[in-house]
Amino acid sequence: MTRLLHVDSSVLGAHSVSRQLTAEAVADYVAAHPATTVDYLDLALDAPSHFDTNSIGSRGAQAEPTDVQRRENAISEKLVSQFLASDVIVIGAPLYNFSIPTQLKAWIDRLAQPGRTFKYGDKGPVGLAGGKTVIVVSTRGGMYSTSDVGQAMEHQESYLKVVFGFFGVTDVRFVRAEGLAMGDAPKAAAIEAARVQIDAAVEDDEAVAA
Amino acid sequence: MTRLLHVDSSVLGAHSVSRQLTAEAVADYVAAHPATTVDYLDLALDAPSHFDTNSIGSRGAQAEPTDVQRRENAISEKLVSQFLASDVIVIGAPLYNFSIPTQLKAWIDRLAQPGRTFKYGDKGPVGLAGGKTVIVVSTRGGMYSTSDVGQAMEHQESYLKVVFGFFGVTDVRFVRAEGLAMGDAPKAAAIEAARVQIDAAVEDDEAVAA
Repeated sequence: MTRLLHVDSSVLGAHSVSRQLTAEAVADYVAAHPATTVDYLDLALDAPSHFDTNSIGSRGAQAEPTDVQRRENAISEKLVSQFLASDVIVIGAPLYNFSIPTQLKAWIDRLAQPGRTFKYGDKGPVGLAGGKTVIVVSTRGGMYSTSDVGQAMEHQESYLKVVFGFFGVTDVRFVRAEGLAMGDAPKAAAIEAARVQIDAAVEDDEAVAA
Repeated sequence: MTRLLHVDSSVLGAHSVSRQLTAEAVADYVAAHPATTVDYLDLALDAPSHFDTNSIGSRGAQAEPTDVQRRENAISEKLVSQFLASDVIVIGAPLYNFSIPTQLKAWIDRLAQPGRTFKYGDKGPVGLAGGKTVIVVSTRGGMYSTSDVGQAMEHQESYLKVVFGFFGVTDVRFVRAEGLAMGDAPKAAAIEAARVQIDAAVEDDEAVAA
């Protein structure tokens, strides 16, 4: 049995290309691997609040947590447990102002807990969430992958690769649809290209949990 | 008269090194340039919500905005007006999980409005907020600036440089205190080094608005 976590973060609802493509990726994954259960997290509807003094307590000792801290710690615990219990995570990650939506970063901030997703060893940080496959559906209005300047400007794919790598996830796959705001024909072509990448991403046997 | 906007985003309150250093930078700036008015924005206390369907309306036509949309659009308008009215912006930007706090990204999402901070011309995007000086006080628990790996991992300074550049701000200065979680002596040394950088950043005459 493979446990798949499907995460969306676009705020564009039915107009969102990342939502359309994550739905297709999850459907294709389940079709290719029928013994899969799917859990769904919609960060546009249900985003954790900004990481702050009420949620930071999940990382340390709080002798007497307040009610708000208890509630925020419970949210963090639920999210990190859900992530750790998953074998495959499909993430819709649009580029907003050169980075990811704050909803998605706020989720990552709740996952980043010492002793759960990472620890510090004698030789530096050690990721504790290895063995998972992360499939990122990356969407962008402009073109970033085809030039050095574009690659330096985007803090979306490169960020997700870094932070999931820090958690120990070495198998991070990208499905990319870019140039989506450059006209109908480029948009349609980008979506078709992404579908080919979805086929490759979901059919790779490494993505199947043992 | 120079208008300085002082922005903090650390959630650590009195324990925050970035707050300590932005306060020193602002005090030093005012001492060096007495004809300065200071406006203060504390994003830990008063962060914009995640950018979403209620705030996205500030960028386009909303025939009949809801009450929530009116309120969120007013917040966006207040923040972008405050930013555009400032000559010098001092920003406390700690590194949280390899990027900036979501509170700070949420503020940037409210500033990123077409026709206000950027527009699209025949030759691509054009920044509309030129002529300002941004002084970023960057704080980090670990060391990132001294290795290629560290520089590739950090999505904090490099992100701020990209997004303020997109807004047309070419004069972005960094004051950096890193290795703050590596012991008392390295922390004290990092803070002292940052103070030297503050002196250089605030005394450069380019920072004075005409």
